[in-house]
Parts: sequence; C-alpha cells; structure tokens
Amino acid sequence: MPDAKTFPLNAWYAAAWGHEIGRSLAARTVCSRDVVLYRRQDGIVAALEDACWHRLLPLSMGHLQGDEVVCGYHGLVFNAAGRCTYMPAQKTINPSACVRAYPVVERHRLVWIWPGDPALADPALVPDFHWNDGTDWVGEGGTAYSLKCDYRLVVDNLMDLTHETYVHAGSIGDEAITGTPFEVTHTERTATVTRWMIGIDPPPFWAKQLDRPGAKVDRWQIIHFQAPSVIAGDVGVAVTGTGAPEGDRSQGVNGTFLAAITPETETTCHYFWNFVRTFRTDDEALTRAIQRAHVNDGEGVYDQDFTVLEAQQKAIDRNPRLPFYNLNIDAGALWARRLIDRMLEREGGGPALVPSQAAE
Amino acid sequence: MPDAKTFPLNAWYAAAWGHEIGRSLAARTVCSRDVVLYRRQDGIVAALEDACWHRLLPLSMGHLQGDEVVCGYHGLVFNAAGRCTYMPAQKTINPSACVRAYPVVERHRLVWIWPGDPALADPALVPDFHWNDGTDWVGEGGTAYSLKCDYRLVVDNLMDLTHETYVHAGSIGDEAITGTPFEVTHTERTATVTRWMIGIDPPPFWAKQLDRPGAKVDRWQIIHFQAPSVIAGDVGVAVTGTGAPEGDRSQGVNGTFLAAITPETETTCHYFWNFVRTFRTDDEALTRAIQRAHVNDGEGVYDQDFTVLEAQQKAIDRNPRLPFYNLNIDAGALWARRLIDRMLEREGGGPALVPSQAAE
Amino acid sequence: MPDAKTFPLNAWYAAAWGHEIGRSLAARTVCSRDVVLYRRQDGIVAALEDACWHRLLPLSMGHLQGDEVVCGYHGLVFNAAGRCTYMPAQKTINPSACVRAYPVVERHRLVWIWPGDPALADPALVPDFHWNDGTDWVGEGGTAYSLKCDYRLVVDNLMDLTHETYVHAGSIGDEAITGTPFEVTHTERTATVTRWMIGIDPPPFWAKQLDRPGAKVDRWQIIHFQAPSVIAGDVGVAVTGTGAPEGDRSQGVNGTFLAAITPETETTCHYFWNFVRTFRTDDEALTRAIQRAHVNDGEGVYDQDFTVLEAQQKAIDRNPRLPFYNLNIDAGALWARRLIDRMLEREGGGPALVPSQAAE
Repeated sequence: MPDAKTFPLNAWYAAAWGHEIGRSLAARTVCSRDVVLYRRQDGIVAALEDACWHRLLPLSMGHLQGDEVVCGYHGLVFNAAGRCTYMPAQKTINPSACVRAYPVVERHRLVWIWPGDPALADPALVPDFHWNDGTDWVGEGGTAYSLKCDYRLVVDNLMDLTHETYVHAGSIGDEAITGTPFEVTHTERTATVTRWMIGIDPPPFWAKQLDRPGAKVDRWQIIHFQAPSVIAGDVGVAVTGTGAPEGDRSQGVNGTFLAAITPETETTCHYFWNFVRTFRTDDEALTRAIQRAHVNDGEGVYDQDFTVLEAQQKAIDRNPRLPFYNLNIDAGALWARRLIDRMLEREGGGPALVPSQAAE
Repeated sequence: MPDAKTFPLNAWYAAAWGHEIGRSLAARTVCSRDVVLYRRQDGIVAALEDACWHRLLPLSMGHLQGDEVVCGYHGLVFNAAGRCTYMPAQKTINPSACVRAYPVVERHRLVWIWPGDPALADPALVPDFHWNDGTDWVGEGGTAYSLKCDYRLVVDNLMDLTHETYVHAGSIGDEAITGTPFEVTHTERTATVTRWMIGIDPPPFWAKQLDRPGAKVDRWQIIHFQAPSVIAGDVGVAVTGTGAPEGDRSQGVNGTFLAAITPETETTCHYFWNFVRTFRTDDEALTRAIQRAHVNDGEGVYDQDFTVLEAQQKAIDRNPRLPFYNLNIDAGALWARRLIDRMLEREGGGPALVPSQAAE
Repeated sequence: MPDAKTFPLNAWYAAAWGHEIGRSLAARTVCSRDVVLYRRQDGIVAALEDACWHRLLPLSMGHLQGDEVVCGYHGLVFNAAGRCTYMPAQKTINPSACVRAYPVVERHRLVWIWPGDPALADPALVPDFHWNDGTDWVGEGGTAYSLKCDYRLVVDNLMDLTHETYVHAGSIGDEAITGTPFEVTHTERTATVTRWMIGIDPPPFWAKQLDRPGAKVDRWQIIHFQAPSVIAGDVGVAVTGTGAPEGDRSQGVNGTFLAAITPETETTCHYFWNFVRTFRTDDEALTRAIQRAHVNDGEGVYDQDFTVLEAQQKAIDRNPRLPFYNLNIDAGALWARRLIDRMLEREGGGPALVPSQAAE
C-alpha cells in the first residue's frame, strides 16, 4: 500500500444519518479517527475523540450523563467540548485534560463531521446535498458501513456509468450508455459529467417509470461531483422531441442518485447513498421497491457494485502494478481524482495513486 | 506498538493449574515461548521447548513414552531434561541435539515456569501465593487464557480499585471507594495500596456475607503486588468500632482476591485468578456462587474487566498517543510499573510505556 | 519469513485437473501470480493474468465470450493471447493494452502452467507424470488446494518415508522402514531414494493387497523426485525369494504415489496427488477405498500429513531458529532441496532455507 495520504482532512464528511444519533453513544471511525457521537439535550449533535484522555478506553463504552460522557473505566467525565469536568478522587482537575471535539453540522438528514483543523470548519462548505432533505425529492437510502475499499474507488465507480452496461446488465445497464459520447466540465471544487442519449429505447427501469409504451426517449445522466467525495447524479428520461435536452423535462421522469462517501481508513469507507425522485412521490411502495433495487441482501445493483469494489481493492493490495491505465471513459473520474489530489497537496500530502497513461 | 520489551524473563510465571497437567502433553505459550508441559511418572512436572530440534514440529503434537516425549513427525525422543535420546535410523546421536528445558516449580496449586536464564531460577523466588493452597483459605478460581491485552493492563486494573465504582457498579462498586484516600508503600520487589473506608454502609456483596443488617462497617482493601505480576488483595468488612483498623477483624468477614498474570505475548496474557475466604469455608454453594460472580459467560465482574481490558489494548494498538496520562488514583499502578521497569532494566531492555505526567 | 525466493518461476506447475477446466472462468494462484483459466472452443486451455489491464478487477469475475474474456467491470475484452480486443466507448485500442498470457500444457490429466519467462517454456520439460494418464495405472486422486505450508515441506515429507512410522502408525507405517538403510542417487534434475526391506512381515495395507497370508515379503520404496516439485513413489511388496529386488515383481503388488506440488504463495501450496496401481485395476470399490484412505475428512493418511505440515509451517513462522538441523534420513530431501536451490540460483535468487548441519 502506498504511504501517501489518500484523503484530505479539511473537509466535511458524512458520519451518520441524523436518525441514527440519539441519546446514546455511537462509535464511528472517520478518516482513521475514532469518534463517539451523541445528541445533546438541546438536540445538537456532539462528536468527541473516542478514547479517554486517561487510559484510552473508548468513551463509547461509557454512558451519557446529561450532555456529558462518563468513561466506563474510571469515571472521568467529558463535556461536549471535550473538556474533562470530573476526575475520580481528585479535587483539582488537570486543566489540560481533554479529548478532541470535532466540528459537527447536521444538514440534509446527515451528520457531517470535520476531522481536520477546526479553525477551518466553515459550515458553508458542507456539500450541497439538498436532494436528501425529504422535501421536494423523495427516497429512502441507506449506508454501506465499512465497505472494504478506498473511498476513491467508489468515486471512480459513480463518475463513469459505462460500468452499468457490464455490472448492472439487465436492470439499468444499456449498450446506449457505452455508445454515447459525454462531456466533462469542472470548477475548482466540482466536476460534472454530462451524457445525453437521444432517441433510444428506454431501459427496463425507466420504461416502467415513464409508462409510455413504444415511445422513444432522450435519456440523461448528469453526474455532479463535489470534492472530495460527494456525488449527485441527475438521471432520467423524457419522450424524444419534447425538449428535454433544451430544459423542458415535463414529459419525463427524473431521479437523482446521491452518494456521500466517507473514508473510514485508507482502504475502507462508509458509503451513504440514496435515490430520490420527483415522480410518484406519494407512492411508498415505489420508494421501498427502489430502495430494495439498490441494496437487498446482495441482490441489488449497489450490492453488485460493492462486490466489484471490494474485489478491486483486494487486487490493488496484491498487485504492485501501478499506476492505473485509463480509458476515455475515465475522464470524469480523472477530474474528480485531480480535485482530490489538489486538496491533498494543499494539506501537504501528495496523492497516493497518480493516474497517468491515457489509453489512446 | 513500541519495540521495547514488556516483560522480564527472569521471573516465575504461572503456566497452568496443577490439576491441568497430567500424563499427556499440554501446550502453553509463556513470554512468547512455546512450551510443552507434562507430568513425569514420579509426579514432577517437566517443561520443554515445544518445537522439535529436527524440523520444529510442536512436540505437543507427539506423545509421552515413560518420562520422554516422542515427536509426532519422525519419532525423535527427548527426555525431561530436553536431551535427544533417540533418532530414527541412526546409531549415533548428535550430542548437541536437544530442546530447551525450562525450570519448573509446582507450588500453591499452580505450575510456575522460569522462561529466562535457568541459572537464576531460584525456587525461593516463587511468589507468595499461599492463600491459594486450599488449606486455611477456601475458593475455586479459574484462568482467562489468551486474554487479548498486555499483562500490565491487568496489573493496572487490580492496583486501582476505583474502577469498581464504574465497571462493577451494582455489585462490588461503591462511591465510597472513590471518595476515600489511600496510601502506597513499597519495597524493592513489592508495592502495597491500602485503603480503609470507615463507618460506611457495606456494598451488597459484603452486606450479605457479614449478615449484620443495619450495621455500619469499616471496609478495607489492601492490595499487595509482587513484581512482575502477582497480586493478592486483602479485602473485607468488619462492624465499625470493633477494632478492625487496629488489627482485630473478629467482627468481620475477610477474603483475598488472587491474580497471577502471565505474559503470553507482548499483547496477550494468561490470567490465573481466585477469590478465597476464611468465612463459611464449608459452604460449597457459596464457593460456587463466588466463582460464578467472577466469571460466568460474560456476566461476572471479571468478565466486565476482560471486556474493558481488551478494548483498552485495541485502543493502545490503534493510538499512537503515548505516554498515558495519570491520575492520583494511579499511584499504586505506577509503583507496580516502576518495579517491572526496574526488572526490565536489569535485563537490559527499557520499559515499553513510560508513565510520566501526573494529573495535578 | 526469509526474503529470499522459495520457488523457481521457470518451471511447469500443475494448476488444475483437466476436468476442472471447462467453458467457464476458473481462478488459481500459482507462484503468487493470480491466473484465470478456461478452455477455448477448440478444447485448448488458456491462462491469463487475473487482473484487468484497466482497473485490476479479477477477470475471473467476468465472463467468456467465445474464446475471449469480458471484464465484469467496464467490459474490456481480452483474447486468449492476452491482447485487448475491445474497449468501451473507444474506436482506437491502445496497442499496449494487454494482460499476461501464461504458457499452458495439458498432459497426464493435469493442466500445467509456466509462470516464468514464456520463451523458456518448453513442453518437453513437463514432468513425467505418465502414471496419472488413466491407462496402465489406475487410481483417483485429488487436490489439497491452499495447503498452508511452503511447498518444500511437502517435498521433505515425501522424500523421507520414515515419517510413516510415526505419522501413519497403524496403516502404512512400520518399524521396518526406519530400521532399513536406503540409498540416494541423483542427476541434474532428479533425485531418487531407494529402500528395500527384505523378508519382513507386510504392513496391514500391503498384506491385504497381496493376499498371501503368512508369507514374508520384500517391500520397496523407490521415490523419484523431479525438480522443483514433482514426485512419483514406486512402492509395493512381493513374496520374499521370488526375485523382486532383481527385477521380477510378478509375485507382488505394485503402486505409485504421485505428487505434483505447486507453490501458491511463499507459505501455501496446492498439492495434486494420486495413488495408482497395476493390481485389481478393474476394482472400482478398491479405487474408492484407496482414495478415502488418503483423504477422508481428516481421517486419511494425507489428512494426517496436512495437519503436521501446517503445524510445521506455523512453527517456522514463529521460530527464528534456522537453519534446520538434519538427520541421516533427510538425505533424499536434502538432494531435492539442493536441486531446487540450483534452479533458484540460476534465476538469480538465493535459496531461502539453507539446510546445513548434519546430525552425526
């Protein structure tokens, strides 16, 4: 494994779904940092280093006392700012006794934490994930905790949907994806892959949602990456000739796949996902069916991705042959990697895997 | 993990209960040394290096032949001194063919072995563990083999009983322990922590044993450490005002918790324990009840300690933040560590974890 | 573990039984190289590097398309020579895009691959394993895939059958083996151990096959090693005085044990074995009984060897005490090791374990 850093620390990373954090202690590892999360009595989420100042026992093995955490070994107490407020059998508390407190923002139904320099933790930098709010867009996702791969392999996966043709043949995969050119644009913090497939037969999933038998459709995939690891993919189909490429999607159906990918360690990650839609938003059976289509005991399309991603990581671990070779289809992923690398460079660590050779 | 040595080799370590060693071969790892133990026909226990001189197969996979061990691969035979007495298809035996024999003493119902220099293995140095003899004091203990922590974490645990308040709340834990001052004394090879809680309500376990409803008690905890890793804790309660602090325990009940902790590797250990008493010594149901109160499929007080100790070791392995910070309550453990460190220094290895910062 | 190489690469190694390779993709690891095997439409077996040129996903997770392999991630296609013939969304294929193709020969019911320099892969060098053809000699063997030991420990095991006396007491083991001298001869690529036990009582297995109650027999064990890791052991018994040592085996029964041992990694191997015979060749029940006598859910004689071999490897991993000490009985194994070492030297890597000290 390369020594170079693989993830920037000065970034907001999803650590949990809001509903997972209540009045008990929840352990998470984010960017190789062990964290204990809990909800204060005023509803605010706190995140502390998950190792007691005294003898390192995970604080998550202790219990909550009001807004403070009591260590399960010797009873030291830490407040939500990480300061020690009680030591057994001592009247004086060492003023330096504390554990690290991580900046937290709860937004878009997720709890985001900032593992790097707290002085830089600007809440305005929390990625735009508004589709996940549960307001205009409807859907229920999930999390693949501790997925056994570098979080960047998930980014690669989502930035190039030609893999759908091969990994997800028979559901959302389609020869048209591979056959259609795409374009990549980028800003300093984002990269966007846009592909329009004009006048094609819709693949099974979309044909069913559109419910216009026989109609040719224009299908779009507009994948938006926010560095270092959040992706929102605007996808859908509309009846051909009704103006979708020009902006009128009224004769179509539209969804967005959402991914907030959080490094757990150098070679594992947490993958918070959702698929939300603006059509048939009241149809709870459809919501559940879409969820199950993604993750369902190994049968969903994301389950197929997980298998591939973990096998790819194993192969990387075993295989000293680096760098990756790249194809034209990798243009979007390469821009995502480049933006991550720039963040790493700004933090003083070089990129770990330098993509280099083009395929043509 | 630090490279420095964590255990002295020139010491007697408990390797097994006497009743566990009979006329068959038993494998143990002590101080990272693989050992095969067996009882000779004259009843003496022998301990040999558990790897055949020839091709390293564990001798414990072979069988006993009289007082000798036959290797299970090619039939080499070794006597109880470790000398090879038979080689297949050879008339002449290489005079240097041998495996290491370890000094052994069986005492206080335990088998002790000396992994270091045999010339220094003085039986007079076997720790005082007479409470375990099964004579004046009665109790049945057990062993936590291959506990996944540095043996010194167990020493820390037992030298500071304030942890009872938090780890064992509801059984032997009590606010009084934390609130009461204690004193530490030491000699060149021992450290003793003494705490007297005067005029308190007895905690549930002791209230029941004393059977003097309503009476206030004086409770004592006198924990005696013998370097590197044997502890005997003199504990009990007596009716307040009957002279216990001055030496008259006739109006009280008295027990001793016993721990012989043996490094298996740098980060695992064997923990031989017992709790013996001088009251109701004929009550076998009480003996069994006390044993189950300590270890009982995860429900006993020692099971609670094991969970904490193994989590602490995991945290140490993950966490480069060293040294430990210390509190006043750690004074006893610090002396124990200091005595271990002196033994390590005498053997030429530095201590592995230097406790350094006081909390006040 | 020593850094030096343990296996030569320029050699034919058994990778699979022929019947295991059909019109699907089979993964194997040979000499630390991940390989995917499949049978082309013309019946020829192909072997490719099991990692896609593009992003390293194992090709064995993809599927066959005619004689080509389609990667299961992005659909790249590789032909049986390892050349990429299709890239998604590209008209031009990078001419350097390929995976490694390994030379393959199918012979003697096994698929042999050459992990080293393809230019040296002479089919004439495939080890003589004709006993396994299923023609004159009859038997059904099996494979211990991923046996957890250095392949050379299996060679040691088979080159010195005195271990039968101890590991296989009660079946084929016999005191006579250990008591009888043997001789070792060798060529540049082979070593042969010959042992004749004259006028002995046959051990149970052979007594039953010979079916001459009360007769004394001459028993032979002529073990033939072909470097680096193929062994054929000519074994049997004939009635004493009927000329077997001089070449007339007509009054005897004869079998050959066969071993093709393939390094999987430095410390694991695949062990293809068979036991074939020229007596009662039509007796299918006997064929099955002999197979079960070797491997049978831990009860067979080879199961006993596997237990010993894996324990020996564990001991070597734990034990820095090297080199091995050797006995007279190791003369055959030493010659085998020497021939392996010479192959390693020719490839520029030193031997990993230098056997050195004789026992007398």
